[in-house]
Amino acid sequence: MENVAIIGASMTQFGQRDGWVLDLLSEAGTACLDDAGVPPDAVDHLYVSNMASGEFEGQTGIMNALAHDLAAMPAYTARIDQTSSSGGAGVKHAWQSVASGASDMTLLVGAEKMTHRTTAEATDVIASITHPVEYKHGVTLPSFAGLTARLYLDTYDAPRESLGKVAVKNHRHGVDNPHAQFQKEVDLDTVLNSPIVADPLRLYDFCPITDGSAALMFCPESVAKEYTDDYVLVPGVGGATDTHVVHERADPTTMRGVVESSRIAYDMADMGPEDIDVAELHDMFTILEFLQSEDLGFFEKGEGWKAVEEGRTERGGDLPINPSGGLKSKGHPLGASGVAQVYEIYEQLMGDAGKRQVDADTGLACNVGGFGNCVITTLMEAN
Amino acid sequence: MENVAIIGASMTQFGQRDGWVLDLLSEAGTACLDDAGVPPDAVDHLYVSNMASGEFEGQTGIMNALAHDLAAMPAYTARIDQTSSSGGAGVKHAWQSVASGASDMTLLVGAEKMTHRTTAEATDVIASITHPVEYKHGVTLPSFAGLTARLYLDTYDAPRESLGKVAVKNHRHGVDNPHAQFQKEVDLDTVLNSPIVADPLRLYDFCPITDGSAALMFCPESVAKEYTDDYVLVPGVGGATDTHVVHERADPTTMRGVVESSRIAYDMADMGPEDIDVAELHDMFTILEFLQSEDLGFFEKGEGWKAVEEGRTERGGDLPINPSGGLKSKGHPLGASGVAQVYEIYEQLMGDAGKRQVDADTGLACNVGGFGNCVITTLMEAN
Repeated sequence: MENVAIIGASMTQFGQRDGWVLDLLSEAGTACLDDAGVPPDAVDHLYVSNMASGEFEGQTGIMNALAHDLAAMPAYTARIDQTSSSGGAGVKHAWQSVASGASDMTLLVGAEKMTHRTTAEATDVIASITHPVEYKHGVTLPSFAGLTARLYLDTYDAPRESLGKVAVKNHRHGVDNPHAQFQKEVDLDTVLNSPIVADPLRLYDFCPITDGSAALMFCPESVAKEYTDDYVLVPGVGGATDTHVVHERADPTTMRGVVESSRIAYDMADMGPEDIDVAELHDMFTILEFLQSEDLGFFEKGEGWKAVEEGRTERGGDLPINPSGGLKSKGHPLGASGVAQVYEIYEQLMGDAGKRQVDADTGLACNVGGFGNCVITTLMEAN
Repeated sequence: MENVAIIGASMTQFGQRDGWVLDLLSEAGTACLDDAGVPPDAVDHLYVSNMASGEFEGQTGIMNALAHDLAAMPAYTARIDQTSSSGGAGVKHAWQSVASGASDMTLLVGAEKMTHRTTAEATDVIASITHPVEYKHGVTLPSFAGLTARLYLDTYDAPRESLGKVAVKNHRHGVDNPHAQFQKEVDLDTVLNSPIVADPLRLYDFCPITDGSAALMFCPESVAKEYTDDYVLVPGVGGATDTHVVHERADPTTMRGVVESSRIAYDMADMGPEDIDVAELHDMFTILEFLQSEDLGFFEKGEGWKAVEEGRTERGGDLPINPSGGLKSKGHPLGASGVAQVYEIYEQLMGDAGKRQVDADTGLACNVGGFGNCVITTLMEAN
């Protein structure tokens, strides 16, 4: 089987955007074709990662509309939905289409358009990601995060301030990301004194509601060499579920989907956590960055918070986490987020990350659906 | 690369069903696990083909809920949407997960729950499959079918009765399908005198709105041999788009998505239309059976109607088409339909089709999204 390569990437401005999801998809798709230097008629598979265009704007069939707008017909198209990890799922399906030999050129574009709906309307759709036995009683994703954060702080004797430092770090990283929704620093006092959302978590422990799109171009390594000397390989990608009813988990501070998906990806790539130079994690809530950094094997269980306190996950640290600013400062347009994580690792490994550049030959992206109900881990390395 | 096999299949009763889409998915998924003799914890990839659970019943994340209900965790999950060809798209993604080496056991379950919504509500969602430039002016899928039917009849000098005979044939086939929504014959007079929907097409030229689910179990051939001596292989599968704006097509009586998707599938399998013994085509509208039977290469352009007139596509004919009764009599639960087409070919090639049995070693399924906006063609053969 041939190695799977990424030869181009793009992302749009994240934030509050005009237009429809199709406009965002077209913007990122066109930019990715340009970045890769691939003509649209060379694309044979076109995947759209998107959770809810029908629910948010009453429009379905957006993958076929995008093929039309990009002049990529007769490319095969599909929409991939894995709730908030739809982008990571798209990466896995793009990998599979190339690795299976079905595709010589797969364009993946993830997008979500959400800010035109009220927060109540948007969160109503998002709440339905989880099990009705929970969300119909008010246990939504933010409240899971609050409950888990309290359990984590109690169990591992971690200070509340350590969670706030995740927000401070990722906002500081986001200052240098021209595509981020928030390009501004916040100080620890501001985070710790922001309004309570789900005790002990406060407003600045949460990512915002966002519009945006990101895209990646996948092909076999032999095809990549026809287009460029510099590309990134994807030696491993894994996906795994955890219980859909969150309260059935034996230990809510362990995300089994993270453990299992990374085990699969590490095994495929013959790599381990010690081989990773940089990571983009799914910091939809600050507490999730601790859990993932431990369940991916970067740090011992219960010690992720210490790594943040010690500055090890800063851009200048020994394992930079979320050099892009993460979901916390970039924003979280559901279908785009997992694609944008891989975009950041691609830019880092290509040496094109500008002020955000870290020293890295390998990278990892971890995209979380629901409250870890399904997780996708992707490993990448420079060629 | 290993051959991809199907080792189990199921479908639920199609029609007006109680419960939610998750109940239908669980019913078909459980039956498929039983049919294949595969324990749920052996499933490593679980795909749900579904277009619109969020729009129809306000529930998302159904693939994760299904993994939970089937006890298939930590299997990776995703929802595959390709509008009315979501089922066929699911078959392609299942094939890719096995052919890429990522999966040793992929369960695909397609379902849609629609009849609890009014016809106006359901058709509002379905209309949004196509381009707003058309549907917002009233050119919906049924009106495309009427316009195309008139053009076909005029261009190829075909009698109106030939379209009616597709409905008569497929209803007759459906009498022997215990899962079909309509298990009753209709005569030609009834079809030709039913209420006009989109001239020249009348009520009996259209499939109904339906609830239902169907499932398939995919694995590498080497794994198949561990479970059974008798299985079906999938030597080719192809997908292709046509213009998303239907009125831009040079010749609306040719479905480019059918031509291109079947070319890809035939090339992969080193087969041609002359090698196919039985076919399930997407007869959402009677006219579509003519177009597909020609664009797949079974009959010359403009001669599909003659094959029906001559009885060649009856179960006893030289190329039986829709021995299951087709979408016309089985019904069309969007995400399930393409899976149920492959279920029928599987049953035929396994010799398990009962009263519907035809003599076949190879088969083809053609699943159409929108008005041919994306099409998936799947080839199968007995082992």
